[in-house]
Amino acid sequence: MKAGEVRGTPVKIGIVNASSRFSPERGEAVEAWFAANIPGGEVKIVFHPATYGKHGHFGGDDASRANAFVEFANDPRLDAIWFARGGYGACRVADAILPRLNATARKKRYLGYSDAGSLLAMLYKAGFPHVAHGPMASDAVRHDETAWRAINWLKSGDAASLEPSLRDDPRPAVAFNLAILDALMGTHLEPDLTGHVVMIEEVSEPLYRFDRMMFHLTAQPGMKRIAGLRLGRVSEIVENDPDFGQTPEEIVRNWCARSGIPYLGAADIGHDRDNKVVPFGPR
Amino acid sequence: MKAGEVRGTPVKIGIVNASSRFSPERGEAVEAWFAANIPGGEVKIVFHPATYGKHGHFGGDDASRANAFVEFANDPRLDAIWFARGGYGACRVADAILPRLNATARKKRYLGYSDAGSLLAMLYKAGFPHVAHGPMASDAVRHDETAWRAINWLKSGDAASLEPSLRDDPRPAVAFNLAILDALMGTHLEPDLTGHVVMIEEVSEPLYRFDRMMFHLTAQPGMKRIAGLRLGRVSEIVENDPDFGQTPEEIVRNWCARSGIPYLGAADIGHDRDNKVVPFGPR
Repeated sequence: MKAGEVRGTPVKIGIVNASSRFSPERGEAVEAWFAANIPGGEVKIVFHPATYGKHGHFGGDDASRANAFVEFANDPRLDAIWFARGGYGACRVADAILPRLNATARKKRYLGYSDAGSLLAMLYKAGFPHVAHGPMASDAVRHDETAWRAINWLKSGDAASLEPSLRDDPRPAVAFNLAILDALMGTHLEPDLTGHVVMIEEVSEPLYRFDRMMFHLTAQPGMKRIAGLRLGRVSEIVENDPDFGQTPEEIVRNWCARSGIPYLGAADIGHDRDNKVVPFGPR
Repeated sequence: MKAGEVRGTPVKIGIVNASSRFSPERGEAVEAWFAANIPGGEVKIVFHPATYGKHGHFGGDDASRANAFVEFANDPRLDAIWFARGGYGACRVADAILPRLNATARKKRYLGYSDAGSLLAMLYKAGFPHVAHGPMASDAVRHDETAWRAINWLKSGDAASLEPSLRDDPRPAVAFNLAILDALMGTHLEPDLTGHVVMIEEVSEPLYRFDRMMFHLTAQPGMKRIAGLRLGRVSEIVENDPDFGQTPEEIVRNWCARSGIPYLGAADIGHDRDNKVVPFGPR
């Protein structure tokens, strides 16, 4: 997990922003991290200029974010696509992206989580083979280990980056922020999760909302066919007044029991530095 | 809209709580309102004792809330069922209620909104003919006009209580809090809304969440067949930093345009004293 461990063909990673505004200062911090940690340039990054766009809530308007994604995904000079950050906005650009992606785009690795899950789902549903839930550029470089975990997967799909339950479980997997997965269910972006281990994580929600999302998720026809659910970390829980009365794990166990979905235990994912990589599909 | 206007057969309304905790003080305020405004007892109310239960977030545990609803709904001495309040919890008790409702329950009027929408949807889907979105006991009696609007509908389905667009639009209608309707879509509680005017309202959400819910809602197969959407009030909007960049109406118009759902204009509903009554289905 050090710079020297990056070996083989140089890799060039394109960074795009499909969601909320991304500050130039954060972009400079990412570039500084690469300059300091990979001075030989074995792994290079390039930010799409539209990454820093501003349009109300979003990092540029929908057309600008969609165009940037398509341009980088289709560019044969780039080996992988890394989401800059989450927030909100990826679901708004999906329909303008997918029909324009070419054969080059299909070969690349894509890594992100949180709001980026809407596009991960879109790509996975479209049969893209290298799509994963894991650290994004914006948060990865705050912690060296997190950054190397992401980079090593983007470079070569390094098994050391993966969520540990995947080592012993041969079933296909996916991972999502719960609110994002919830918002995809029933839409044209919902992938077929039959037989999959589905990992979920959450951040900044009161538990009554977490419970309501679990009701909705576990009642979906598409979820009845999954192999089971794993629960990642539920962090920065917004206070529930009065105390909700159940922990996140108890909530997930309750809805799994009600809906007949197997609860498979914990997942080592979350909105934090320990967020491991979960490649979508079979391994 | 005065006490004197309540005529005809005396009516007895049962009040139940399917959601968050309900304080005895608020219950006493409701009883005091009826004592002061309908001293002759032409309209009587009775709170189910379980209304004041406490179980973590909820007004009693799931079994207690379900049992109370079934008991009052099936009771031939009660003419109508009024939800005490919203909050969260109705979706948790639906499955324990529906199979136990009898022919008496089917004849009654049911009135509530916000979280109660989960049970309104359940009842409407089950073919109950008198189900409506409108003021609940807890908030109605804070404003006399609001209370009379609710009571007159519970008593006789008074047309003066209805949301005004219903006067000139003969199509069947429903109304929901957006977050609740969103959480019902794709589940076994989702009613068939083919040909319906669907009215939505929202409270206490930042606009990025409102936008995400509209993405999810308008992408549902069941929504492609509706007559159109009307937007009620979106109140107590939580600050979006930076400013979202679109108003609630612009957001709804955008997703309606994207999904081919007709946008029909405003609806006179919301989390406020002016919340009008929307009976579900044909009128």
